[in-house]
Amino acid sequence: MSESFFTSRWVERPRRLRDSAALPAGFRFAGIACGVKDPTSAGLDLGLLVSDVAGTVSAARFCDSGVLAAPVVVTQGRCDPHGIRAVVANSGNANAATGEPGIEQAIRVQEAAAAALGLDPRQVAVASTGVIGVLLPGERIAAAVPDLAAALERDPTGFAHAIRTTDVLDKHASLTLDLPSGSINLSAQCKGAGMISPRFATMLCFVQTDAALREQTAELLLGVTVKRSFDRISVDGQLSTNDTVILMASGASGVAVAPESEDELRFGEALDALLRQLALRIVADGEGARRIARVHVRGGEEQKVARVARAVANSPLVKAALFGGDANWGRVAQAIGAALPGSAPLRFDIAIEGVTVARDGAAAEHDAGALAAAVAREEVAYEIDLEGSGAETELFFSDLSYDYVKINAEYTS
Amino acid sequence: MSESFFTSRWVERPRRLRDSAALPAGFRFAGIACGVKDPTSAGLDLGLLVSDVAGTVSAARFCDSGVLAAPVVVTQGRCDPHGIRAVVANSGNANAATGEPGIEQAIRVQEAAAAALGLDPRQVAVASTGVIGVLLPGERIAAAVPDLAAALERDPTGFAHAIRTTDVLDKHASLTLDLPSGSINLSAQCKGAGMISPRFATMLCFVQTDAALREQTAELLLGVTVKRSFDRISVDGQLSTNDTVILMASGASGVAVAPESEDELRFGEALDALLRQLALRIVADGEGARRIARVHVRGGEEQKVARVARAVANSPLVKAALFGGDANWGRVAQAIGAALPGSAPLRFDIAIEGVTVARDGAAAEHDAGALAAAVAREEVAYEIDLEGSGAETELFFSDLSYDYVKINAEYTS
Repeated sequence: MSESFFTSRWVERPRRLRDSAALPAGFRFAGIACGVKDPTSAGLDLGLLVSDVAGTVSAARFCDSGVLAAPVVVTQGRCDPHGIRAVVANSGNANAATGEPGIEQAIRVQEAAAAALGLDPRQVAVASTGVIGVLLPGERIAAAVPDLAAALERDPTGFAHAIRTTDVLDKHASLTLDLPSGSINLSAQCKGAGMISPRFATMLCFVQTDAALREQTAELLLGVTVKRSFDRISVDGQLSTNDTVILMASGASGVAVAPESEDELRFGEALDALLRQLALRIVADGEGARRIARVHVRGGEEQKVARVARAVANSPLVKAALFGGDANWGRVAQAIGAALPGSAPLRFDIAIEGVTVARDGAAAEHDAGALAAAVAREEVAYEIDLEGSGAETELFFSDLSYDYVKINAEYTS
Repeated sequence: MSESFFTSRWVERPRRLRDSAALPAGFRFAGIACGVKDPTSAGLDLGLLVSDVAGTVSAARFCDSGVLAAPVVVTQGRCDPHGIRAVVANSGNANAATGEPGIEQAIRVQEAAAAALGLDPRQVAVASTGVIGVLLPGERIAAAVPDLAAALERDPTGFAHAIRTTDVLDKHASLTLDLPSGSINLSAQCKGAGMISPRFATMLCFVQTDAALREQTAELLLGVTVKRSFDRISVDGQLSTNDTVILMASGASGVAVAPESEDELRFGEALDALLRQLALRIVADGEGARRIARVHVRGGEEQKVARVARAVANSPLVKAALFGGDANWGRVAQAIGAALPGSAPLRFDIAIEGVTVARDGAAAEHDAGALAAAVAREEVAYEIDLEGSGAETELFFSDLSYDYVKINAEYTS
């Protein structure tokens, strides 16, 4: 790995976490072409991930859409959340809004994989991403499971590619972390490019480690780190039906991460950095994106701070200006006002890349040249201060480009 | 006027309302180039509208952004809402997020117009549209007011053009209505193309009639009809800082519209049809728009129905599919789920142009050819049924096009 996985200035890489070719012990992966995306194509679209260690501990998070895809319903309802040993994931079909037949197809896939791997179906998660409203070809997938199982190998690359849809950037990582109790490895495979909202994203993310975690540790750390990563990104403000994040800890390194230990603190920092960088990779890979941005909002009320951050991050006007490299801060002001109706006159400051453009709700004199140069870069930081203090939040978002429209106007239904 | 003003199938033209060259008696208009948009351009950017009748009755509505533009603050705070006799409106500068200096400039314009027209400043409304965060050149405008007043004429065309920004379609009308008590005339000039949200729009709309209205009648009818028109449209879901709607009734026709009369009912119907058609014209002129749509949602709870309608109308994924003529109803399902988090499994039906594509939350078999033909037309109707009954709403929205991005990436800040 020539370039570091950690490329954003908005993620601090913990000191003892490094890029590494070593993979977490205990896991195998496969990715094959099954014809879900397109029966005539050889594109990878079916992936399998399995832990060979009986005591593997897992934790999982899902989106909260009112329209949950069948694989989310099946994994949430039929799996032991802390005992997931395998994941079957497909791209090309979300198996969402497919009703009872969709549930049946997801179960069929789950059971076929359990049989092939000698596991209980409760240990096998299913995940799907792709077009909504088309029944998953579960029979075709079930028939391909033996080939899929036969293709299992240590290298996760095929699996990582099989879960991609419109993704362009790689979103997988393998890292080594030195803990006081010993070294452990982490790997992750992630997908996501459109239908990405702060309330999660159309994304799948699978994280493996050979550290030994207790159930409550896996649960706690995944919960906290998902809130600080996938819960804070917006490509288009559109909540998906299929979002799934699964952490699996095989314990095969022999290094145990005990609750409230220095190990736990360090492991949590590493997981946090990993998920934040993956989330930023999703934003940077936002369909058609040229630039990404961070909006950081401070103020006296949690709810107002959150509403302002989302209004700015989801504003097509702010996003189009970001794409154009246009320092149109008036649109940020517009989004702030829209987020807090009925509260005029609002007092707020706006700074873009450290250049204060508005103070107390009104235009502030500033160096237009410095500002123009700042917004032409690949990452742009917006700072917004509302009245009061004690509450703050951040969101990461992509721009709105011609290609976003092109991809979403032409992406076959 | 060769073509009828009423072009949408979603507006029913009242029987006794007709396109007409006759203008409401008592009003004069002017539009000049003042250099607000661009000091070197001869484009019209300053408009004046005045009623010559002393007893003119008015009503006004404004957006509720937390960041209200100075002209909104001044008109709301310093005008008699039922006694507005004149409006000075400029394009090219919103005079929003300009603080106390912005207020001072707006007042300067208001006072200059009042002096030129021999009116009390409380009778003169001000309105602005254009870029946010740049101080209005009030001195330049005040200096141009005598020329503006000298240009007043019966024809509203120059005024209608002076309030436009990125508008392409004409949004003015002149109509004659036969009431039981006699015939009256209505005219309207409207602008709006971007930053258009269901909570109003970046829009200005001025309506004149020579009917005689009481204050409470003007207030009641404008309130109801704005809710059914400008409050139900979305180009990009972005609430503006400047929205202003002003109705002025000169009474010069001698026809009085008495409360709770047949005249009032008919006049209300006519005003409703006028504002709805103007609102639809704004949507059709949505920056870069190719197609417009209506989403009609029914269900058991007002709030859920409203949230679903807004989620669909504001979804960039639904809008991009609309632009592409793509019958991707899965994105409508996604928007429904996102609007009602935590409520899975949701039961809903979706029909597009009468073709039922989802029933009970799942895909329904349908004629794909008929659906493809339907979504390729200029107007597309989405019907959504949630559980329960008794609540319903509708919203009109435009698609998301390459040109929306182009206009908003390149529109100078």
